[in-house]
Amino acid sequence: MTTQGELLSPTPGLAEVLKGGSWTQPTCPCCCSKNVEPLLLVQLADSVDPVTKKWIISRLEAPVRDGGAALLVHSGEDDAGNVVILSAPRCTQLRVTEDLGMWKPYKDGNMVAFSYDDRNSFRNIDDMQVFLTLAERQHVVKYQLGSLRAKKDRTIPGVPESRGVLLARESIFRKLEKVGVIKTVIALHDQRQLADLAKAWYSGWQLLGQPLDSIQAYFGTTVAFYFSFLDFYTWALVPPAILGVVLTLFPFASGTAAKASGGEGKEEEPGLPVSGLMVQAMFSMLWSTLVMELWKRRTAALSYRWGTPLLNERYAEPRPGYTGPMGRNPITGRPEPRFSEWEHKLRVGLSVPVVGFFLGLVALGMAAFYHFEAAARDFHKSEGTWLSVPLLYVPSLAHILYTNMLGSLYGNVALGLTEWENHRDESSFQNHHTTKVLLFSFFNCFAVLFHIAFIKEDLALLRKRLASLLIVTQLVNQCTEVLVPYLVDTFLSDGAKKPKEDDPEEDRIRAQGRLPPFPGLFPEYIELLVQYGYLSLFSCVYPLTAVLLLINNVTEIRTDAFKICRLFRKPSSAPVSDIGVWQPAFEVLGFVSVISNCWLLLLSPGVRQFCQEGGFSSRNALLFAILVEHVLIFGKMILAFVIPDEPAWISLKKQEFEFRSMQAFNQQKLQR
Amino acid sequence: MTTQGELLSPTPGLAEVLKGGSWTQPTCPCCCSKNVEPLLLVQLADSVDPVTKKWIISRLEAPVRDGGAALLVHSGEDDAGNVVILSAPRCTQLRVTEDLGMWKPYKDGNMVAFSYDDRNSFRNIDDMQVFLTLAERQHVVKYQLGSLRAKKDRTIPGVPESRGVLLARESIFRKLEKVGVIKTVIALHDQRQLADLAKAWYSGWQLLGQPLDSIQAYFGTTVAFYFSFLDFYTWALVPPAILGVVLTLFPFASGTAAKASGGEGKEEEPGLPVSGLMVQAMFSMLWSTLVMELWKRRTAALSYRWGTPLLNERYAEPRPGYTGPMGRNPITGRPEPRFSEWEHKLRVGLSVPVVGFFLGLVALGMAAFYHFEAAARDFHKSEGTWLSVPLLYVPSLAHILYTNMLGSLYGNVALGLTEWENHRDESSFQNHHTTKVLLFSFFNCFAVLFHIAFIKEDLALLRKRLASLLIVTQLVNQCTEVLVPYLVDTFLSDGAKKPKEDDPEEDRIRAQGRLPPFPGLFPEYIELLVQYGYLSLFSCVYPLTAVLLLINNVTEIRTDAFKICRLFRKPSSAPVSDIGVWQPAFEVLGFVSVISNCWLLLLSPGVRQFCQEGGFSSRNALLFAILVEHVLIFGKMILAFVIPDEPAWISLKKQEFEFRSMQAFNQQKLQR
Repeated sequence: MTTQGELLSPTPGLAEVLKGGSWTQPTCPCCCSKNVEPLLLVQLADSVDPVTKKWIISRLEAPVRDGGAALLVHSGEDDAGNVVILSAPRCTQLRVTEDLGMWKPYKDGNMVAFSYDDRNSFRNIDDMQVFLTLAERQHVVKYQLGSLRAKKDRTIPGVPESRGVLLARESIFRKLEKVGVIKTVIALHDQRQLADLAKAWYSGWQLLGQPLDSIQAYFGTTVAFYFSFLDFYTWALVPPAILGVVLTLFPFASGTAAKASGGEGKEEEPGLPVSGLMVQAMFSMLWSTLVMELWKRRTAALSYRWGTPLLNERYAEPRPGYTGPMGRNPITGRPEPRFSEWEHKLRVGLSVPVVGFFLGLVALGMAAFYHFEAAARDFHKSEGTWLSVPLLYVPSLAHILYTNMLGSLYGNVALGLTEWENHRDESSFQNHHTTKVLLFSFFNCFAVLFHIAFIKEDLALLRKRLASLLIVTQLVNQCTEVLVPYLVDTFLSDGAKKPKEDDPEEDRIRAQGRLPPFPGLFPEYIELLVQYGYLSLFSCVYPLTAVLLLINNVTEIRTDAFKICRLFRKPSSAPVSDIGVWQPAFEVLGFVSVISNCWLLLLSPGVRQFCQEGGFSSRNALLFAILVEHVLIFGKMILAFVIPDEPAWISLKKQEFEFRSMQAFNQQKLQR
Repeated sequence: MTTQGELLSPTPGLAEVLKGGSWTQPTCPCCCSKNVEPLLLVQLADSVDPVTKKWIISRLEAPVRDGGAALLVHSGEDDAGNVVILSAPRCTQLRVTEDLGMWKPYKDGNMVAFSYDDRNSFRNIDDMQVFLTLAERQHVVKYQLGSLRAKKDRTIPGVPESRGVLLARESIFRKLEKVGVIKTVIALHDQRQLADLAKAWYSGWQLLGQPLDSIQAYFGTTVAFYFSFLDFYTWALVPPAILGVVLTLFPFASGTAAKASGGEGKEEEPGLPVSGLMVQAMFSMLWSTLVMELWKRRTAALSYRWGTPLLNERYAEPRPGYTGPMGRNPITGRPEPRFSEWEHKLRVGLSVPVVGFFLGLVALGMAAFYHFEAAARDFHKSEGTWLSVPLLYVPSLAHILYTNMLGSLYGNVALGLTEWENHRDESSFQNHHTTKVLLFSFFNCFAVLFHIAFIKEDLALLRKRLASLLIVTQLVNQCTEVLVPYLVDTFLSDGAKKPKEDDPEEDRIRAQGRLPPFPGLFPEYIELLVQYGYLSLFSCVYPLTAVLLLINNVTEIRTDAFKICRLFRKPSSAPVSDIGVWQPAFEVLGFVSVISNCWLLLLSPGVRQFCQEGGFSSRNALLFAILVEHVLIFGKMILAFVIPDEPAWISLKKQEFEFRSMQAFNQQKLQR
């Protein structure tokens, strides 16, 4: 732990650096402060023309009424340098907080939608460092940067016209990125706060329990929701893990069924006895619904706590990538690009066959692999010499190569498609993009297992495959997620990243640009989803799954924390009120798991023998399995319907807000 | 049509009757008007003590701040009589309109939630007869009557203490009903408006097309939604009817499959060919989802048009039957009974097994019927004489008797249970009550058909049964719904109902009390639901179902209209924004129909032969049917998800309302 200790030793807070200097002088008296906190670093191209930089700075500094972003700008060590450091004055921060629909503690202690005009009734309003979290302050700057739009068609000073003209209402930031003037935008770490967070989070030996509020404050709600979910899900694994151990240790039904072997002469491993299988399957179905419903309630409580229960993204600025002819928002009346709702929906609809086509390619690849593998084996058997041995590995290698190429191609296609769909709101964009990638990744992971379970109907192979996948995944995870980063951090990147005490502050900030960008939470969520798939889809085949996952997750929490704190640039994202599309993804998996478990039960040698002994025809057994499946799915739906999605006290708060708003609206109409 | 013409000949409008007389004199200047319109008739017990009547009138007349209902009261022909006639002054009407959250046209033409303080900005505000519909004005009076609650524990003057003490905050109206002082409350017909409505609705020869706005104005949204749904549904039957005719006339697949007969040696009627069956089943699945989704959109448009898009029942007075210790509404702060949310939910949960028990009794009755019928037939066969012939009818008769007794017992149980569940809101009460009765009625109707389809697996019998049910239902409907009422109206009740020109107005009003109370829309809806069940669950067995239903519905519209206008007291109910629990009931049926159709297809002789010829094993055919079923259900869910529930322009209006409310709330907080 020495490296950590050294790196995180108390460094001056970011608020204290870059004092005075060449920061923009705000005109508004309430925004003047001695310490300006550097929040975002905009990395310009090395070759940037000073004229361009000057123009950018002037746009960023200008007040909103002049079409600027009303930010505080620091032009770096000298005016010709290739960085711009940004902060936001108090007024801008408060106005954007209202725009986003964030809730903040009112003087009476309740959370209420923040209102700029009524700002003095909110708690801590005088101390921006307390009133807004670091993540929120950084998002404010990013939001302002994104909502900076050209007033009319014009060229960018210092950028030749051939490289692009700025159209009226086009996002300036996006255009600058496109023409290569802005290379990247980095949210800056606050080393002191980070050190405190790291200490509370992963440096100790606590097994569970994370400082969720501090995570939210530092990294924002997106990251905080991921870790909350990870936490919740890990706790939720305890009951199935216990059940799995109990069922494995004490198989409490007649042993005869367990020792039965299939009629096809294959060697079958002894599975669980019938009653054990039944208990396991039933439990896992109830469990999956309960977990996701309770998580919904937890989500509601967390989003209230973090001030994001009713984000009004629809009334805020559209995301920078949103294009369309100029118009007015029909609700707020603000000018913004408008895109036909019908065409947007049509485009979303047209994306479906494209995604389907790629899923088809995955299936095709798998089929080809099976075909050529069998062919190679046959060839080797019939006329094999030692020369044909390498041939046996060709199909595998080709398949891996094919899958990887397809994956990276699809990644680009998915991003392009989602951009083309032209979503107005960031959350909608994220959800559609995530859904596309998720379907592909999931299909990629599970196609083979489904093939074994549903087409080959070979439970023994499925069990072997599942166990090896689980164990290999664990080992690979531990390796890639813990060991490698630790080693890299300790030995390789030492010189590049470790701050030298005599460095000027700006260099320390610049150094953060050398870290790789945060890869996003997609890989983390998909890992959980795939795990959850192993657990819920095939749980009755391998009852110890939950135990392995539990062990994995306990380490996962710490390694993810370590990764996000130390190895990447600080992630920054818009406030969210839930985990987005991952919630339905987990729920859908729960329903699919009913189908899969019923099917696996039907195939299991125990149940087969049980049917034979009981004199059920295979048709009746199948009909019975279908009946059970329908009843269970119906039961899950009822359960999901019966458990309220929000705790009662939160619904009440929201209703009260609505009621008071309505009353106020009536009063206001009267006064006009 | 002579009787109709006579009855509906221009009679003086109700607004002109009972002029001046002994109506309450309102204190508020804006509420004084020359003509007071009698809206509700309260029928008291014949033996009512004049002291009690006087006390009731004083409570009804008193202003709201003194715990009264702020209504206008007419004590009938003399102060000792047993009727009280009610109306509402303008102020009361407007205040309740705001309380209910009704939307009304604003001066700019948009629909906006009505606000009393801002009343002068709404259109037609000076003419209550135009601003509120008759149904709304009557509901206002009923609402005030129901929200009249005792201020503290007291006895009712003229009612001995032994018959009940009025507790603090208990509903006075409900208590008076319980102790027998109030016999009934009748919403009064307006003969002139009724005559106009009848003319536009059913007196002409138009086939479809109903004056929905006039229906809404006269009978209120509940009735208007029923007739809108009936209208919509009838139009929706046209495509399946056409398909049914086409498939019956031109069976366009190979005739061999159609002529195949089952292997069990039974005589099978020729069914549809395989491809026809497939087309029919697929079509019916898509159709059912489309119809219900489009109806949702139509609902949204209608409720906006009728001013009920966002009813705030939660903020209005609880229904009179709601009991609990006194408390305050946590949102509005008004005093009202409060009942533990947990106990309420527990009670709802406990109702489930009771309902299940009664459904079990229905199944038991059916099983017993089959058992004893078989036994009787065997007995008659083995040792039958002419004496044992009547024995053959005993099981049927006993079953009918049993079913009827069970039905009426269950009716009471369902009502009692729902009362015991203690719902705060009227709509919640209605939905829970309807659900209970609906499940029972539906199960009662379909148990036999399901038994034939799924247990006996006898398609020929199912087809015969379905055809006879459809035709018998039609005949019985035509008889009971058209002929009998028409005859009764023409010959029997002539003297009792026909207004004599020389009658004093009050007697004409009293005469309405002699009509039977309106039985509610439950029988009408359940008839539609059962029809829809025949159509969607078993459509592939009898393709002409839609044609028969279409014919039935076209007459149904007119007979229902005639019934509601002429044969009953005027129904009156709270404004609603949709058809309530009937929407999900129809949707659920759509999903069940997928299961049922897949199963029937699998059983159909055509498909069976097709499988045999194609060399599919019965297991594979079954697996394929399951796959198809899952895909179709998934497809239906996607379709339902993709079609937005509201037209875009209505969502926009609602969002705008929310946004403006929120802004106003912020402004208001500032001003305080």
